[in-house]
Amino acid sequence: MSLPTVGLLHPGAMGSSVGAAVRAGGAEVIWASEGRSAATCERAAGDGLTEVATLAGLVEVSDIVISVCPPHSAQDVASSVAALGFGGTYADLNAIAPASSREVAGIIETGGGRYVDGGIVGPPARSPGTTRLYLSGPGAESVAALFDGSLLGVVSLDGGLGAASALKMAYAAWTKGSAALLMAVRALAAAEGIEQDLVREWDLSQPGLSDRSADVATRTPEKAWRFSGEMREIAATFAAAGLPDGFHRAAEAVYEGLSPLRDREHSFEEALLALCETEGDN
Amino acid sequence: MSLPTVGLLHPGAMGSSVGAAVRAGGAEVIWASEGRSAATCERAAGDGLTEVATLAGLVEVSDIVISVCPPHSAQDVASSVAALGFGGTYADLNAIAPASSREVAGIIETGGGRYVDGGIVGPPARSPGTTRLYLSGPGAESVAALFDGSLLGVVSLDGGLGAASALKMAYAAWTKGSAALLMAVRALAAAEGIEQDLVREWDLSQPGLSDRSADVATRTPEKAWRFSGEMREIAATFAAAGLPDGFHRAAEAVYEGLSPLRDREHSFEEALLALCETEGDN
Repeated sequence: MSLPTVGLLHPGAMGSSVGAAVRAGGAEVIWASEGRSAATCERAAGDGLTEVATLAGLVEVSDIVISVCPPHSAQDVASSVAALGFGGTYADLNAIAPASSREVAGIIETGGGRYVDGGIVGPPARSPGTTRLYLSGPGAESVAALFDGSLLGVVSLDGGLGAASALKMAYAAWTKGSAALLMAVRALAAAEGIEQDLVREWDLSQPGLSDRSADVATRTPEKAWRFSGEMREIAATFAAAGLPDGFHRAAEAVYEGLSPLRDREHSFEEALLALCETEGDN
Repeated sequence: MSLPTVGLLHPGAMGSSVGAAVRAGGAEVIWASEGRSAATCERAAGDGLTEVATLAGLVEVSDIVISVCPPHSAQDVASSVAALGFGGTYADLNAIAPASSREVAGIIETGGGRYVDGGIVGPPARSPGTTRLYLSGPGAESVAALFDGSLLGVVSLDGGLGAASALKMAYAAWTKGSAALLMAVRALAAAEGIEQDLVREWDLSQPGLSDRSADVATRTPEKAWRFSGEMREIAATFAAAGLPDGFHRAAEAVYEGLSPLRDREHSFEEALLALCETEGDN
């Protein structure tokens, strides 16, 4: 059998590593360069992805389209593909709520395509065992097969459409939710003038926590702009299950408070100060 | 100099260990048995505390009164002592917001007493190094001196009245807040039918987390009724500092959801089910 042609939207840091994993599995991967940055162009070339000019050109020749984008763009990306009459398989691998994933499924199926629900756990897949792609729903096998022998592990879930998105939401609910809580606690301690006392107590009774909090504070601001949309999706997932959504509404406020530090040199103290300027209105 | 007489309100599991620590320092400790349970009576006797019948009798002979009670009772306990014209030193060691502590200070000082702000970190002080008493504000030294050579470590903070309460709030904001988040995440995974998949992913990339979540789910329900009041105090502390209060409003809902399991045999699954029945209205 001939290998499918895969269209990748878009080759960001994570997306390009997904494209590289498909290439390792043998299929050709194309991407649409219209409106993308020079950095994206370089990254895609480095991962052996084939450039086409426009989204229309990508949709025309792709058997499978894979969406890897910020959570708040997932519906728009799907709509633009469906509007071009895409009739193949569309895999959304984004960090969105199960209800959002079902919404994207509706957009794709109305346009004549077949939908596969996905979610990625871990950093960009650049070494073995660090990153897993969860897939669910009919058609998952055809997407899973693309990654045979690649650095991206694939786990197909039984739960039906939305299960992979639910897994991603639950996983990130802890990792990114607890990171936001930890930042907020450090900011509170700083605001109350007892930060060093808290760190001394942590070093006695919560080993590793002060290091983790410092690490989160220095590494998070660059990514915070993406995380706030993900926190909204997680909060919606909790509310839909009849669980409290306040943890992740607060985490959204924390990441929004940190977003202004993006692409700026910033210190741990600046990160905490940015939080103290966050409105406590949730 | 003669040692002061210390009145303890009340000898619960934590309070009685504080009384035992004062006894180890040499001072006499009295408690008021009116309306208290047989279990409390037995615990107090076991720790060498002297029983008097009424609160009035306790206030009359105490140089220092120590309050160790559920957060939601702190103001009532202080008011009942102030109403009896207590003119000595009153130490509130409860898990309350700095603003609540200043409120209790006003109650005590209006009644003619002197106030010391405190907070306890750790389990009941039954072995060395597990538990620390934080103190702040004028008069802290006189309370600190009670515990010389006891199992309860004492740390006096420079930050002035409210610093010890702030330290306790920030510490519990992480420990009890992250525990509530972890329970809610497990409940979400159960509701979405991907709990075992999440645990498998945690075992790969978040070592120890599934064990921690199971431990929290089995041990928390007995204590949840106390924790919800503490979460309200923590949420108020965040809001007063201009930080998001949603983490701990959600944690309050989690602990309220678990409270019905108090004093009942319950399984991990029952604990999760109790959460899924929580209203997500915060």
